[in-house]
Amino acid sequence: MEETTNSTTQGVNNTIDFKDIYVYSDLTTIDIANLVIRNPDADNSISSSVETIIADVKHRGDQALLELSERFDGVKLTDIKLGKDDIATIASSISEDEKNAIDIAYRNIWKFHESQLHAEGKVETMPGVTCWREVRAIEKVGLYIPGGSAVLPSTFLMLGIPAKIAGCSEIVVCSPPQKGGLINCYLAYVASLLGIEAIYLCGGAQAVAAMAYGSESIPKVDKIFGPGNQYVTRAKTIIQSTSLTAIDMPAGPSEVLVIADETCNPAYVAADLLAQAEHGADSQAVLVATSDVVIKRSIEELKKQIEVLPRKDIAAKAIRNSYVILAKDIEEAMEFSNVYAPEHLILATDHWDKLIPKVNNAGSVFLGNLTPESAGDYASGTNHTLPTSAYARSYSGVSLDSFVKKITFQHLSAEGIRNIGTAVETLAELEGLHAHKNAMTLRKG
Amino acid sequence: MEETTNSTTQGVNNTIDFKDIYVYSDLTTIDIANLVIRNPDADNSISSSVETIIADVKHRGDQALLELSERFDGVKLTDIKLGKDDIATIASSISEDEKNAIDIAYRNIWKFHESQLHAEGKVETMPGVTCWREVRAIEKVGLYIPGGSAVLPSTFLMLGIPAKIAGCSEIVVCSPPQKGGLINCYLAYVASLLGIEAIYLCGGAQAVAAMAYGSESIPKVDKIFGPGNQYVTRAKTIIQSTSLTAIDMPAGPSEVLVIADETCNPAYVAADLLAQAEHGADSQAVLVATSDVVIKRSIEELKKQIEVLPRKDIAAKAIRNSYVILAKDIEEAMEFSNVYAPEHLILATDHWDKLIPKVNNAGSVFLGNLTPESAGDYASGTNHTLPTSAYARSYSGVSLDSFVKKITFQHLSAEGIRNIGTAVETLAELEGLHAHKNAMTLRKG
Repeated sequence: MEETTNSTTQGVNNTIDFKDIYVYSDLTTIDIANLVIRNPDADNSISSSVETIIADVKHRGDQALLELSERFDGVKLTDIKLGKDDIATIASSISEDEKNAIDIAYRNIWKFHESQLHAEGKVETMPGVTCWREVRAIEKVGLYIPGGSAVLPSTFLMLGIPAKIAGCSEIVVCSPPQKGGLINCYLAYVASLLGIEAIYLCGGAQAVAAMAYGSESIPKVDKIFGPGNQYVTRAKTIIQSTSLTAIDMPAGPSEVLVIADETCNPAYVAADLLAQAEHGADSQAVLVATSDVVIKRSIEELKKQIEVLPRKDIAAKAIRNSYVILAKDIEEAMEFSNVYAPEHLILATDHWDKLIPKVNNAGSVFLGNLTPESAGDYASGTNHTLPTSAYARSYSGVSLDSFVKKITFQHLSAEGIRNIGTAVETLAELEGLHAHKNAMTLRKG
Repeated sequence: MEETTNSTTQGVNNTIDFKDIYVYSDLTTIDIANLVIRNPDADNSISSSVETIIADVKHRGDQALLELSERFDGVKLTDIKLGKDDIATIASSISEDEKNAIDIAYRNIWKFHESQLHAEGKVETMPGVTCWREVRAIEKVGLYIPGGSAVLPSTFLMLGIPAKIAGCSEIVVCSPPQKGGLINCYLAYVASLLGIEAIYLCGGAQAVAAMAYGSESIPKVDKIFGPGNQYVTRAKTIIQSTSLTAIDMPAGPSEVLVIADETCNPAYVAADLLAQAEHGADSQAVLVATSDVVIKRSIEELKKQIEVLPRKDIAAKAIRNSYVILAKDIEEAMEFSNVYAPEHLILATDHWDKLIPKVNNAGSVFLGNLTPESAGDYASGTNHTLPTSAYARSYSGVSLDSFVKKITFQHLSAEGIRNIGTAVETLAELEGLHAHKNAMTLRKG
C-alpha cells in the first residue's frame, strides 16, 4: 500500500509544479518542523534603511514625508491631508454594482464584529471584595491601507469597522498617494461609509513612523493596524519594540492550507489554492489530502485554471514555493495542520462539522465545499487580518478586541477588608514588602 | 487664589522629597507630555549582552544554561529540572498561616479569571452565511517567575491560574535557582496547588531564550509571560521581534497614580504611595490631589511612615523620582490620569463611583478609601501583571484572554452562496484578484 502510494505520488510529482509531494507517515518530527517554517531566508537587510526612514520622519516630520513620497511613490504632494470634500468627490465615481458589493461587505462585517461586544458582570470573589472588567476603546488608532500594486478597500473595511464599533475617538488613516496625488475611488467610498473625514497620503515605513511619532499633519496614535510590504512590516516591528505605540500583530506573506478528502470537489480545491497563490510569489498554498486521486485531480484542475489567470506568473511562483502532503486519514491531516498553524484553513470535506473541535491553531477556518476563502476575504463578516507564519499558535486575528482595552476594577468594603486583610498582610510579609502590608494594616484599623 | 496655591505648594515643596509639586493649570500640553514620560534615559547598553546570551542558549542549549547559572546566580547545577517529588518536599516547609493566605489568594484569583470564560454565539450575517469565533488555549506557554532579590509566589499565582483555566497543555515554569540550587518554599507550594510537576532552575535572559528556542531540558513555548529585571525584559522584547514566540506585554518599572480629594484619608494615601515606592528606586508614585491640605497631610504621613520601612532607602529614591500635581477639581485630576495612563490607579475618594466612566487609560483601578493596591497585588482576584509606562493606552493587563486565541469559523450554504456570491465576485474584480473571483464563480455554478 505504502509503496503504491509512493510511486503514484512520485509519478504525479514529476509532472507538476508544486515543490514536492510528501507522504505524511514518511516524515520525521524534524522534517515536519522544517516543512512548516515559512520564509526561511527572510531578508534582514532592509532594517537599516527602515531605521533611517523612521529617524528622518521622527526628526523632520512633514518635510521628510513629502520628500519620501516624491522618492518612493513618484508623487510631488503639496498637502499630505486629503479632506472630506475631496474624498466625497472621488467616491462619487464608483458604479452602483461596486457600491452594492461594498455595502453588503460593510453590513456583514459590521454585524459580525458588533456581536463581539460583551459586557462582563461583577464578581464578588469574597463577601465585600468586588472585581470586574470594563471595556474602553483605544483612543487613537492608525490604519495603514496599502495602495501600491494592489488597492485594498476590503482592508479598509476590516480595520475601520471594528475601530468604529469600539468607539476609538481618533482614527488616523494613511495610504500611499496614487499617481496624480489622490486616492483610489474605492478607498474614498469606504471612508465615506465609515464617516472618516481625512486620509493622509503617505505610505511605506514613513507612514508607520508618522503614526508612531506624529508629524505636523499626522496625529500620533496608540496602536497601528494594517498589512503592507516588507518595509511597512519591518517598520511596525521596530516601532513595537522602540516606541510606546502598539501594533496589531507581526505579519508575513499570506498562506492557505487546504485539507481535502474524497468528498471534496477538486476544481474548488484548485481554485482556492490559486486564490492564495495569486497574492504574491512568496505566498504559500499547501494541500493536505487523504488520497492520491484527490491530489492528482486537484493538480490537473490547478494546471487548467492557472492558464487563464492574469496573475498567472505570480501564482506559478507561489505554487513552486508550496507543497502537497498525502495523509492516511483526516486525523493525520488535522495533526499536520495544527503544527503548520495556517492563516487560512479550508476544510474541503462534507464532514467538516466533526473536525471543528480538532482545530487548535489557525487564523480563520472555511468549512465545507461551498465556503471559499474569498468569502471571508471580502464579505462573510469575519476579519481578514490574520496571523501568518505560524503565529496562529499564539495570536488571534484582528477583531473588536484589537481596538479596546479591558481595565480591571476592584472595591473593598469594610467587610471585604475583614475577609481579605490578613491574607494580604501575610503575603506581603512573606514577599518582604512591608509597605504593602502597612497599606492593609492601616485600613484594618 | 492661584498665587496662594503656588506659594503654599512651593512652601511644601521645600521640605519634601518629591521631585516637585506642579499646579495642573500652569502646565502646558508639552509640560504634561514630558511629565508622563517614564524612564526618559532608559539604558540601551544591555542589548548586546542580552543578544549574546540569546545566541549562546540557542546554539549550546543546556550547557550554556548551566554555565550562565554559575556565572549569574552563583549556583553550580547538575540538573536544570526540579521534579514533582522535590517540589512537594520543599513545599511542605511552609506554615499553616502562609498556606491559608496563599489558598485565599488562589481561590479569589481563580474565581475572577474563571468568570472571564465566555462562549460566543453564531451569527448569521446573511441567510446561509454563518460566522462565529471559538476559543482555543495557546498550547505551550512559558511562565517566568523572578526569584532574585524578591521571591514572588504571587506572580506565579497570577500567571499559573489563568494558564490552567485556559487549558494550556504545556506550562513551562522557569525561575532562577536560590543559593543551594533549589527554589523557595512558597513557589513550590504554588506549583503543588497548580499541579505543575516541574520547575526549571533558570533565570534572566537565558530563561527567556530557552523558552523561545527550547533546549535539551526546557521545552520551546508559543508565548512567554512574566516580569523580570531589565535583562529579562530586554530579552522578551528581542524574542518578540525575532522569533515566533509571543510575549505577554512590554514591561517597565512599576507605578501608581493616586487621585485624592478632601474625602481621602492622607495616612492611607501615604501608605499606598510607599507601597509602590518600595518596589524599586525606578518605581514612580504620583499623587494628584485637589487640595493643598491633602497634599501637605499626605506628605507628612509619608515622611512618618517611611521611617520604619525596611526598604526605606529604595522607597526614598523612588519618591525623589516621583511628583505631586495639584488639580483644581477631580475632573482635572482624571484628565491628567488618562494622559499618564497609570499601571495602578487609586481613587482615594468617597465619590469613586462617579469617576468610573471617566477612566479611559489604566491597568487596574482601586476604588475608594478602603481598597489599597496591595489588595489587588495579592488577593482580590484581579491580575497584577499590568501595562506600565503608559502602555495602558493600548494594552490590557494579563487575563484569561492572554492565554487563548479566538479562531473565526465560517460556513456558506447554497443559499449563502446565492446571497453573497455576486458581492464577492465584484470585490475580487475591483481589487484585481481574478483567482479570488473564480473560487466563488465556480461555486455559484
